[in-house]
Amino acid sequence: MSKVWIKNGSFITMAAGQEHVINGHMLVVDGVIAYIGEQEPHNAEQAEIVEGKGLLFMPGLVNTHGHAAMTLLRGYSDDQTLQVWLQEKMWPMEAKYVDADTRAGSDLAIAEMLLSGTTTFVDMYDRMDQVAQASVDAGIRAFLTRGVIGLCPPDVQTAKLEEAVAFAKQWNGAGDGRVRTMLSPHAPYTCPPDYIERIVAAAHELDLPLHTHMSETKAEVQQNVDDYGKRPVAHLDELAFFSRPALLAHAVHLTDEEIDLLAARGASISHNPISNLKLGSGVARVPDLLAKGVKLSLGTDGVASNNNLDLFQEIRAAALLHKGVYGDPTAVPAYTALQLGTSLGAQAIWHNHIGSLEVGKAADFIAINIDQPHFFPRTDLVSHIVYAANGRDVQHVWVAGKQLVKNRELLTLDEEKIRYEAQAAFERLLK
Amino acid sequence: MSKVWIKNGSFITMAAGQEHVINGHMLVVDGVIAYIGEQEPHNAEQAEIVEGKGLLFMPGLVNTHGHAAMTLLRGYSDDQTLQVWLQEKMWPMEAKYVDADTRAGSDLAIAEMLLSGTTTFVDMYDRMDQVAQASVDAGIRAFLTRGVIGLCPPDVQTAKLEEAVAFAKQWNGAGDGRVRTMLSPHAPYTCPPDYIERIVAAAHELDLPLHTHMSETKAEVQQNVDDYGKRPVAHLDELAFFSRPALLAHAVHLTDEEIDLLAARGASISHNPISNLKLGSGVARVPDLLAKGVKLSLGTDGVASNNNLDLFQEIRAAALLHKGVYGDPTAVPAYTALQLGTSLGAQAIWHNHIGSLEVGKAADFIAINIDQPHFFPRTDLVSHIVYAANGRDVQHVWVAGKQLVKNRELLTLDEEKIRYEAQAAFERLLK
Repeated sequence: MSKVWIKNGSFITMAAGQEHVINGHMLVVDGVIAYIGEQEPHNAEQAEIVEGKGLLFMPGLVNTHGHAAMTLLRGYSDDQTLQVWLQEKMWPMEAKYVDADTRAGSDLAIAEMLLSGTTTFVDMYDRMDQVAQASVDAGIRAFLTRGVIGLCPPDVQTAKLEEAVAFAKQWNGAGDGRVRTMLSPHAPYTCPPDYIERIVAAAHELDLPLHTHMSETKAEVQQNVDDYGKRPVAHLDELAFFSRPALLAHAVHLTDEEIDLLAARGASISHNPISNLKLGSGVARVPDLLAKGVKLSLGTDGVASNNNLDLFQEIRAAALLHKGVYGDPTAVPAYTALQLGTSLGAQAIWHNHIGSLEVGKAADFIAINIDQPHFFPRTDLVSHIVYAANGRDVQHVWVAGKQLVKNRELLTLDEEKIRYEAQAAFERLLK
Repeated sequence: MSKVWIKNGSFITMAAGQEHVINGHMLVVDGVIAYIGEQEPHNAEQAEIVEGKGLLFMPGLVNTHGHAAMTLLRGYSDDQTLQVWLQEKMWPMEAKYVDADTRAGSDLAIAEMLLSGTTTFVDMYDRMDQVAQASVDAGIRAFLTRGVIGLCPPDVQTAKLEEAVAFAKQWNGAGDGRVRTMLSPHAPYTCPPDYIERIVAAAHELDLPLHTHMSETKAEVQQNVDDYGKRPVAHLDELAFFSRPALLAHAVHLTDEEIDLLAARGASISHNPISNLKLGSGVARVPDLLAKGVKLSLGTDGVASNNNLDLFQEIRAAALLHKGVYGDPTAVPAYTALQLGTSLGAQAIWHNHIGSLEVGKAADFIAINIDQPHFFPRTDLVSHIVYAANGRDVQHVWVAGKQLVKNRELLTLDEEKIRYEAQAAFERLLK
């Protein structure tokens, strides 16, 4: 039996109906939260004690959309039109990837995510066994899916789907259950309708959720209308996409009717504010989505369009951006933004066992060093975390009760080797 | 004679017409850059050697609008309408300030700024002798002004102006020239026209620049039209405001004609993207201002509407926000955003002796720890600084050749005491 006692800390629990901040103690037993409260825990004999003074403990962050392997392309192309960025820069480099590159990029991404407080990430890419193995080795929680593009002959389509299904079967539940899997048509504009229907059918057969990119740009929405006579939400609905638990990345360009339909279908959205800004895609209608009760979460997207994996920045962007764009300083309050990165994020990807610090939940949590000037005075720790914190303030990280970061050192990964391998992989790709 | 030799580092010089990044050496003699280049410096005998490996050196950041003392109110009121925030929260607390509060807030602000790489800041508030003394004691570069609100009887107006003039005279050139001063009507909507004219006349007499808030909200622009029959730029122009070097904070709501006039008058703008978002004020027309050649810079505004003083976040916001709002991923490229926070920022406040690493310039510079995952691979260090760095990556800071931060420790300030005093002052104000 393993026990960790967090002693005399401040806690933002993110538990529904609770005070936002409690000062007290938390006991973790065998990877699960056994106690959290103001009094010292019973049954804490032989627990490893973590002194909580000067630290704020909160749930690990949940990043619901990304492409870890693309971390190798950080800074390789910025400030370009989408066409130049994608066709002249990203695709030619991605075409050269071999397994070792995907692994090097995934390791770099996971190192960066853990060091900035993300304990669960969603990833859609190819060579996903590399991403899965990297996740298992690091100890991070991962929700993985082989994204398939269907603009290819039927036999290639079939081969890709079979690969996606095989990956999903093989890795679901790996790493003591920390790895889960989905199926993913890349996007409505890159997958013919009948191919999407086959993927939906496979998801039913395997009882898996679905993930896709949707309505990231105005142009792809228009293309959907031109090609199929309807906008993406109605199109996917007709293909029974929402008959499965479904996670939609971006969803920037939505009509009122589409928002209503997404709410009615219980679909989840990964809001990626920084990537949407950087690529000039626009600003998602977050206040409207929240008002209509659509399940919302936050993602960084790939590093090539962000260019980092610090989810605190997405939380802050979600809290700030919509105030300015809607002209309403009460839009997306700090606590709501923090929920999107923690409890609501977990719910949006059907991981109801994480996302808050409550008895019975998996012990995925982080400690922030709040003995720094930007966390003073002690007016409102939720506000400070949302509006003043960033990933570099993270001091310790635990996933399923196992400490993965201690005083900003990675315990399961060799950071120097990961940086070296990433640099070497990038230089190989450049040749 | 004091000498510092930065040995084998990477440098983003921000010098016009130079390569963005050079690998080499810098020699600082008596607070001034004596050499920067790829070869080792001559005349480096008895220099203190700073090993540059794993560090990126760049000019210290220039924050062109803020209210340091308001750092005491961080997190005290968020996500409120402007009226509630200002009238129910900010003003009642500010009314209770005594000198010790202003000093405590200024110390906290300066500690946070230095630790996040800001070496020069503009500040407009009252009790400015406290801000000035705190700046001199810390060694930071400061451009200070007593902001006056003219909604009061003539004798009070006169007393305030006299106080502002006395402050400006007394402190201009203090701290071995690191402190400079301006005069500031708070805003066109808080100062009657004849009062602004008196302030302009005083600025001429003292040969000082002017600073004011302008066109932050739609409502104040409309009020200007209602009260004076014209928008703020024409109004200030008629009051001869632009006959002095003038720095305008915010300038969110501008017409094409106003942008043309500001360009023609050579006025400077402090763009405060995060504060403008947080208060729901809107998004300034930065791409249009840049296209018309208006002198632009970046500011955090006060912490109460930000809620931090990390100028790297303003740089990133300036690079990201306008791409999304204009739907153009080429808007405000990374290098331009970095210029706004360094070289252009310095020029906008007429501090032409700082803002870039060039021979003869004052040695205000910072070192970033780039041996971290989020700075890999080494594709483009300018991109990494703009899109992936934040203030917590700052390792060392120098102002006028004197090291003020070493390995994230403040050398001239007692950080723990500053945090304690800030907390105590806030608790006194709450009573």
